[in-house]
Amino acid sequence: MAYRAGVLGGSGYAGTELLRLLAGHPEIEVVHVTADSNAGAAVGELYPGLLGAYENLRYSPLVAADLAGLDLVFATLPHGASQALLPDLLDHVGHAIDLGADFRLPPDVYTRWYGEAHRAPEVADRFAYGLVELYRDEIAAHTHVAAPGCYPTAVSLACAPLVALELVEPRIVADAVSGLSGAGRGLKTTSLFSEANENVSAYGLLTHRHTAEMEQALGKVAGHDVSVLFTPHLVPTTRGILATCYARPATGGLSTARLLEHYREFYANDPCVFVVDEPSGTKATYGANVAHVTVRFDARTDTVVAIAAEDNLVKGAAGQMVQAANLLLGLPETTALPRVGIQP
Amino acid sequence: MAYRAGVLGGSGYAGTELLRLLAGHPEIEVVHVTADSNAGAAVGELYPGLLGAYENLRYSPLVAADLAGLDLVFATLPHGASQALLPDLLDHVGHAIDLGADFRLPPDVYTRWYGEAHRAPEVADRFAYGLVELYRDEIAAHTHVAAPGCYPTAVSLACAPLVALELVEPRIVADAVSGLSGAGRGLKTTSLFSEANENVSAYGLLTHRHTAEMEQALGKVAGHDVSVLFTPHLVPTTRGILATCYARPATGGLSTARLLEHYREFYANDPCVFVVDEPSGTKATYGANVAHVTVRFDARTDTVVAIAAEDNLVKGAAGQMVQAANLLLGLPETTALPRVGIQP
Amino acid sequence: MAYRAGVLGGSGYAGTELLRLLAGHPEIEVVHVTADSNAGAAVGELYPGLLGAYENLRYSPLVAADLAGLDLVFATLPHGASQALLPDLLDHVGHAIDLGADFRLPPDVYTRWYGEAHRAPEVADRFAYGLVELYRDEIAAHTHVAAPGCYPTAVSLACAPLVALELVEPRIVADAVSGLSGAGRGLKTTSLFSEANENVSAYGLLTHRHTAEMEQALGKVAGHDVSVLFTPHLVPTTRGILATCYARPATGGLSTARLLEHYREFYANDPCVFVVDEPSGTKATYGANVAHVTVRFDARTDTVVAIAAEDNLVKGAAGQMVQAANLLLGLPETTALPRVGIQP
Amino acid sequence: MAYRAGVLGGSGYAGTELLRLLAGHPEIEVVHVTADSNAGAAVGELYPGLLGAYENLRYSPLVAADLAGLDLVFATLPHGASQALLPDLLDHVGHAIDLGADFRLPPDVYTRWYGEAHRAPEVADRFAYGLVELYRDEIAAHTHVAAPGCYPTAVSLACAPLVALELVEPRIVADAVSGLSGAGRGLKTTSLFSEANENVSAYGLLTHRHTAEMEQALGKVAGHDVSVLFTPHLVPTTRGILATCYARPATGGLSTARLLEHYREFYANDPCVFVVDEPSGTKATYGANVAHVTVRFDARTDTVVAIAAEDNLVKGAAGQMVQAANLLLGLPETTALPRVGIQP
Repeated sequence: MAYRAGVLGGSGYAGTELLRLLAGHPEIEVVHVTADSNAGAAVGELYPGLLGAYENLRYSPLVAADLAGLDLVFATLPHGASQALLPDLLDHVGHAIDLGADFRLPPDVYTRWYGEAHRAPEVADRFAYGLVELYRDEIAAHTHVAAPGCYPTAVSLACAPLVALELVEPRIVADAVSGLSGAGRGLKTTSLFSEANENVSAYGLLTHRHTAEMEQALGKVAGHDVSVLFTPHLVPTTRGILATCYARPATGGLSTARLLEHYREFYANDPCVFVVDEPSGTKATYGANVAHVTVRFDARTDTVVAIAAEDNLVKGAAGQMVQAANLLLGLPETTALPRVGIQP
Repeated sequence: MAYRAGVLGGSGYAGTELLRLLAGHPEIEVVHVTADSNAGAAVGELYPGLLGAYENLRYSPLVAADLAGLDLVFATLPHGASQALLPDLLDHVGHAIDLGADFRLPPDVYTRWYGEAHRAPEVADRFAYGLVELYRDEIAAHTHVAAPGCYPTAVSLACAPLVALELVEPRIVADAVSGLSGAGRGLKTTSLFSEANENVSAYGLLTHRHTAEMEQALGKVAGHDVSVLFTPHLVPTTRGILATCYARPATGGLSTARLLEHYREFYANDPCVFVVDEPSGTKATYGANVAHVTVRFDARTDTVVAIAAEDNLVKGAAGQMVQAANLLLGLPETTALPRVGIQP
Repeated sequence: MAYRAGVLGGSGYAGTELLRLLAGHPEIEVVHVTADSNAGAAVGELYPGLLGAYENLRYSPLVAADLAGLDLVFATLPHGASQALLPDLLDHVGHAIDLGADFRLPPDVYTRWYGEAHRAPEVADRFAYGLVELYRDEIAAHTHVAAPGCYPTAVSLACAPLVALELVEPRIVADAVSGLSGAGRGLKTTSLFSEANENVSAYGLLTHRHTAEMEQALGKVAGHDVSVLFTPHLVPTTRGILATCYARPATGGLSTARLLEHYREFYANDPCVFVVDEPSGTKATYGANVAHVTVRFDARTDTVVAIAAEDNLVKGAAGQMVQAANLLLGLPETTALPRVGIQP
Repeated sequence: MAYRAGVLGGSGYAGTELLRLLAGHPEIEVVHVTADSNAGAAVGELYPGLLGAYENLRYSPLVAADLAGLDLVFATLPHGASQALLPDLLDHVGHAIDLGADFRLPPDVYTRWYGEAHRAPEVADRFAYGLVELYRDEIAAHTHVAAPGCYPTAVSLACAPLVALELVEPRIVADAVSGLSGAGRGLKTTSLFSEANENVSAYGLLTHRHTAEMEQALGKVAGHDVSVLFTPHLVPTTRGILATCYARPATGGLSTARLLEHYREFYANDPCVFVVDEPSGTKATYGANVAHVTVRFDARTDTVVAIAAEDNLVKGAAGQMVQAANLLLGLPETTALPRVGIQP
């Protein structure tokens, strides 16, 4: 018998991607899906593309009482909503997997980067940070998961092998581009097609909140502080994040070949990370729960370059949530998760 | 034990889409894949997106002798190649499913539209036309299948219910747009990003060869000749065909409601056709083996409008080939075929 | 000394395009620009692309009293706003060129298509319909202009030569695609990049309000009623409309060559219409105040196909407004209007 | 009377952009345009968008003798062609403005980065490097100009003010994205729409040849060696380069405000460089001969970030050639050069 799951915020981009992925999950059945403004509508009415999987499911308003007893709650809610909703719910559901920023960081770090007090610090340590490849033990030791942001997944996977062995200075420059779906389905002028098409722009200079997660994940792998300067850019794709990261060597004797070998060892048991010789484009990950990473050492300028590509809605969001849920349920990690990118 | 399959032309767009779909097929295993200029390369080297499914498969050159004994041969070859290759092969493989134009039309019709003699007329009747929803009986009665073109699939599915009951004059105007993947991976100036982006253009005016297939399929459904004037356009998407078709009523008493009801009955047993009240965009079909169709009657101008959306590489190519193969093998028609579109 | 102009709604897409075009006009100076929510901002702050032309101009709120005395008022306002604003203003400005739908149609036709009473029927006949090529005499005989919609410009220019000589039945099927800028800068889910990208969708089936303008313009050219069934589609470009129109011949002896010759004569004195042998893509018109048209007769199906391409923001909006203003001012029609498309 | 100009390679992307810009130049007339494979075709036949400016001009084959006596020769030829053609021509034309890499670097540096001997080292010093803002004196002192590459223009303009005063370590990380037109009109698989769309990919890691120009231009401004590690990426736009550059401070007391002020002083007399507070997207430069630059100091990670946006075909290619030609001819620098970006 399948685990009974609810998807909260199921009409947003991460939510509909969850619905797509879970439609193919042999052990999880979506029995409840919520949406605020779209409550009442049939899923297939709002998203005809989902007609083939959810002919009769309708969006409900988000009511905490409806969720009690569910085996799994996947939450993709607006910023701050999880702090209000989840604390009282944690003991009444099997597992909560939350995509909000609410439980990704220690409350004090959260407050520093988000500029507001955390409203549920008492339950913060009940969540593991859900970047599976770097936090597998932590996830196994917890019941609930705070799934990482899209950018931190890419940057952390690109750089983790570098900081793990102290091959580079603990000072990373992370330059990344993202497609528009990362900005969600909310109505913003910058998300309009005519604004974003034929346009590339940097934003969030110096202060993007995802920086805190990158420093947390890389610091954990390194065993000491790692600073990250992060510059995100918008590019006219719907999906896809490409992170290109720079650091200076902290040791001699580096070479691209040795770095690639080290990366292959580091990710040897990770079915969702491919270490590739040539940098993959984001298209190699389209619709798939994978990251493609590569690395270079430039002797001429004495610099290390590490690159990761992912689909921000899959490995960077909904797919990673399912990957973490599989872990929590003791299922094979890639259950229901495509590892083949849709090309072209 | 799985059926052993070969994919010919496996480095083109339809070929790689076949590899993606067949990677998830529980009864078919791809054991051989060919590519001309890319022979020797590993599949995952050329398409890192396929690394997750074909870690060790390499492209072979196309050698007829290598194919004998295969249970299934999926051919996505350049125009004309199937006429040369398949005749001698038909008795040595279980089933050939060919995406070329070579065996879609009677040889005389082929000659008229393609302006060249058919080189293998003697085997033409060993192929059923593979538009599954309209040729299910013919496919069941044949061993081999000539899979339809991408545009004919959309236009025929949009209009078949109209001509089946003679609701409209047998004279259709079919206006359609397609993404660039329909032009294949060959190097053409018009396929360059900088030419196609921010551009919409009509082409093949009056004479596009797919017209013959539309007239064949609709004529078969109608039981008499149907003429089609077809205007294709290129739009800057990778995937997707939207066909908007116009005809004048041949009977009184039409209404949109009655037409929709008739469409629902016509496709009641077709899991890959969704009749929708509001016209779906092509995105509803992205990556999925489905067509979404709708219809309108305009009393003001006395005109019927029928619309179909599909992913040209799935329902319009690779997916339909798998759907036909499933039929030939006696498997459930939708085995390994997603019916959920990737959104956004 | 230059004419002093105001641009109302100058932060929308047609408004900023007006600012771009008028920046190069030797006889018109923009001295006032309004914007609702953006009032107070500098033009170059909101649109850094305009920094090179309007270093010090700021958006003002729209106050009727500020406009009195201007030589020219270009209005690109939300639907209905012109009916409220312009009646009292007409006697206090040199010329009003309005892009709203408010004064394009006779009030009774307006009411039929827009489903609401016209609030200023008494001034309706003070506006000429501003489709310059087809209404040059009417514009010359009026002081104010109601500039046409983007689709009607394309469809009317494509078909006018056909109905002028009654070469086709007065019953047109107009199938058109438009880029997203046609939907304006307002916040709509369907205008989001992630919704529109990799998507083509039909909308406004049977009832798009621009139909009334097409029937008005073609009926005027024909001298009798012409019916139009119009199907618009959204495609993922920012700019560009391509209209493909179908009609049945009303006379014998048609040929593509003769039709093209007739089109060339019809537009012989129109510097902004290019009759081309092969259908131009919309990119040929990018940023330019031109339409490219071509025509075909298909003897096989006895059908005429006429095609027009334009930039919806230039010939379909801001450029046409300037073209009309040039006429009203007695200037050369193409003053400040590029006729070269930006390629690629 | 106008200067008589020839455009060599006038059917490529930089060449057609030159034709567009020069069509509006009051002092330069294009009297000769060459194209290899397209010789014989009318310009307006190949590029209907240019019909409005070059109704009768036809492409000629490239024959050196045809060029003698021209006042200006603009060359946008395949790599290496200028070394063969220009040496014998320099004394027979007024000015040569070459967009090839052939004369941008000292022959020994050229050989190091391009891996081949320079075939005309004896005329190398007859060319000034044409990055106008940084080489205005050199251009004035020469007769011929080697116009810079697209990436070096963006990166050099972004970083020049930093190295001019030694505000940062002479060690720059330059991360940039470019649209597809930068790859030219040649047929390459990676330039196909279906490959580039919905894809972002890094390429040319560590070794992109444009690095040499960046180091040359920044070294010249600094007065000593500056090293650059350059990572270019392809993004799915037609036009546009955004360069985001990183360096560590070489001095204390930096702040964003002081850096912006310094940038404004540095570019105070440059009409084609806009220093902006917020980073402009590439769209602000679309079709215009401008670069928009901004800068940040991050005290938290002790890093300086400098950003430049440009249209790679205008300020990064054809526009800069015209800007240099204006200088050579003693005309106002911005003659015929739009400084307003086309938006949206």
